[in-house]
Amino acid sequence: VTELARDRRSRTTDGAWRERARRVIPTGMYGHLGVNALPPEYPQFYGRAEGAHVWDVDGNEYVDVMCSFGPNILGYGHPTVEQAAADQRARGDTQPGPAPCMVELAELLVERVAHADWAMFAKNGTDATSLCLSIARATTGRSAVLAARGAYHGWAAWSNLRVDGTTSEERANVFPYRFNDLASVERAIDDAGRDDVAAVVVSPFRHDAGHDQEMTDPAFARGVRECCDRYGAALVIDEVRAGFRLHHGGSWEPLGVDPDLSAWSKAIGNGYAIAAALGNERFVRGAERIFATGSFWYQAVPMAAAVATIRALRDDAAIDAMVRAGTLLRDGLARQASAHGVAINQTGPVQMPNVSFDGDVAFAKAMTFCGAAMEHGAILHPRHNWFLCAAHTDADIEAVLAATDAGFRAVRSSFETP
Amino acid sequence: VTELARDRRSRTTDGAWRERARRVIPTGMYGHLGVNALPPEYPQFYGRAEGAHVWDVDGNEYVDVMCSFGPNILGYGHPTVEQAAADQRARGDTQPGPAPCMVELAELLVERVAHADWAMFAKNGTDATSLCLSIARATTGRSAVLAARGAYHGWAAWSNLRVDGTTSEERANVFPYRFNDLASVERAIDDAGRDDVAAVVVSPFRHDAGHDQEMTDPAFARGVRECCDRYGAALVIDEVRAGFRLHHGGSWEPLGVDPDLSAWSKAIGNGYAIAAALGNERFVRGAERIFATGSFWYQAVPMAAAVATIRALRDDAAIDAMVRAGTLLRDGLARQASAHGVAINQTGPVQMPNVSFDGDVAFAKAMTFCGAAMEHGAILHPRHNWFLCAAHTDADIEAVLAATDAGFRAVRSSFETP
Repeated sequence: VTELARDRRSRTTDGAWRERARRVIPTGMYGHLGVNALPPEYPQFYGRAEGAHVWDVDGNEYVDVMCSFGPNILGYGHPTVEQAAADQRARGDTQPGPAPCMVELAELLVERVAHADWAMFAKNGTDATSLCLSIARATTGRSAVLAARGAYHGWAAWSNLRVDGTTSEERANVFPYRFNDLASVERAIDDAGRDDVAAVVVSPFRHDAGHDQEMTDPAFARGVRECCDRYGAALVIDEVRAGFRLHHGGSWEPLGVDPDLSAWSKAIGNGYAIAAALGNERFVRGAERIFATGSFWYQAVPMAAAVATIRALRDDAAIDAMVRAGTLLRDGLARQASAHGVAINQTGPVQMPNVSFDGDVAFAKAMTFCGAAMEHGAILHPRHNWFLCAAHTDADIEAVLAATDAGFRAVRSSFETP
Repeated sequence: VTELARDRRSRTTDGAWRERARRVIPTGMYGHLGVNALPPEYPQFYGRAEGAHVWDVDGNEYVDVMCSFGPNILGYGHPTVEQAAADQRARGDTQPGPAPCMVELAELLVERVAHADWAMFAKNGTDATSLCLSIARATTGRSAVLAARGAYHGWAAWSNLRVDGTTSEERANVFPYRFNDLASVERAIDDAGRDDVAAVVVSPFRHDAGHDQEMTDPAFARGVRECCDRYGAALVIDEVRAGFRLHHGGSWEPLGVDPDLSAWSKAIGNGYAIAAALGNERFVRGAERIFATGSFWYQAVPMAAAVATIRALRDDAAIDAMVRAGTLLRDGLARQASAHGVAINQTGPVQMPNVSFDGDVAFAKAMTFCGAAMEHGAILHPRHNWFLCAAHTDADIEAVLAATDAGFRAVRSSFETP
């Protein structure tokens, strides 16, 4: 089946573009959107996107449950966002200085995110997490940072999960702990030296790729906050992946825990390239002292788009819409799994669901499942959480469930003991 | 005069936005577009950009000779580029995978830049230089890197010119040399260990901020290439600032010297946010091994804009246009300086001119000069090279020269010994 699919793929428009890509792009496609390690049903190149739907370069339509790994939160081409972007674009984008919408965006984030007194903007999630780390170091005069083992905070050397291309020195000051395990945080602080911890970096919940997700134990969140207060370290929340999908503010606000610094990107501009580091008064000193900039960090169009996105998220009750669609999907998957007699684990918030299969060594079942779902018109991922957006309708979820039903059938036929 | 200007500024629309910005943005504005350290005539916020002209939020018009520090190379809102961007935007921008224009852009760069066999794309110049460094390290299995003292290669810890927020470990493997001084490169290689140098990073010419510029001695370029070959290190050219302003290909091609890796950003998308790392076959191994990605690295609109930009640059003979405008400006400044009896130094390529004043301790004359020019409608910079673009007409340069004449008068009246 896989050979057939691969052969079929090679004779498509997508296959032709992949052949050209292999000649001028390392591995044909690098990074998280490269499909070399995914089933052959996954196309590499896309031709069009609208709402929760995308079309590959061969014209095949899909309901997209990856949302470009997060950026699409209101729906591709959301009219309010596009109008705001077009209005700003008619005036200017990259200019000799920022446009007023930069101030409006900073004001809006400071208003929405409880811990934030100020904002800085950049382009990548990695920019935002690295800005937080630099600001924590500059404010505290310390070097060490705690990060959960296996958590992804960007491709910078201090947080890259692969060591190739990094030096041991660049990773020297990073001390690991286990998410939801407060004792491991305390041990890591002791390892780092109680007076040398600049920052403890946490994810809003455990959303490591290739693992079942883990919601945050409120006692863990409070305990990490207390540790940071006790030892003078910055509590940094990496909101890049989850930000504004759980709460119209910081993700730990419902737990009553405020970080000192937070890193944002992906969804805040509904697909426009923007990232933000937010912080409280104590850490503004470091923010004022570091040197950080980028050629396009002051681009006006993504900022205008972000203002429109963040306003629309709350005005349109986008989180409610994602929860509704995500709940329909979770319930439907549970029914299908039970009907097919396939044991699955559904973890994480319904807006960012993770699905794994019992005893699924090397993700073989997940690959089969997602390959079949792809063939039937739904974009999922075998090793990474999925993303709902506010444009997912009940009919979209029905279409996804028709595709996942094909996925379960494929798993049964490939893995069932006769 | 400065107090008056500052007071006048505070009563403008720009002043009102700056007041709001100070409450929610560290220092009011961070990075290279922040004007806190510039004369009070500089506005912070811009309202519109078109061709080589920009308007601040109070409606004052300027001929822009900074071109947003480089990104504007064809003129703001260039019709061919905007049309290509709009066409792609109507289909999709951030999508579950790249669009075909990513392959077209990689092919175009490989065709135009002699040393390049492949391309990777990112968002910031810092991404591009750091990608080159990671790829050099992953390919060679070595850690050390040589970089010219005082050269800017981005805000990443290894290259940041300010130490705040970085650790000594992150800077541990960086060894300085002096630009155009081959013996200093050889000494730095000895310091680093002849078998441990992963990369020698060079600028196309010496364009450090706050210094007169220095064109590259061809013997230096050839010598650095020979050193890299002898010791197995990657020669990396940081084209972020100068790329495609000197040559429709790599900046050292006219010298007959090819690097192994090169970093590009700024002008390649005429203001759209994109960066690229290019490399030859030897270094594709490292490029395939590192993990590097970003949420918006596969955005289709900036790639479509970059394809249109790079084609238009050669089709419209953009470099010729910049050389013509830059030569008019250089000649005009020389005449004015002589007529006013003010000694200046004009260095660097005419497309990226640098102007300094003799004996100008702490840039006091340059600040006076640029403040007056700004008041008379020309955006220059007292401590950084300027940038010409292909949209600068003879009439624009005349307008700039009218403004610089006011600048020279201001310098005479402020600094002339009575």
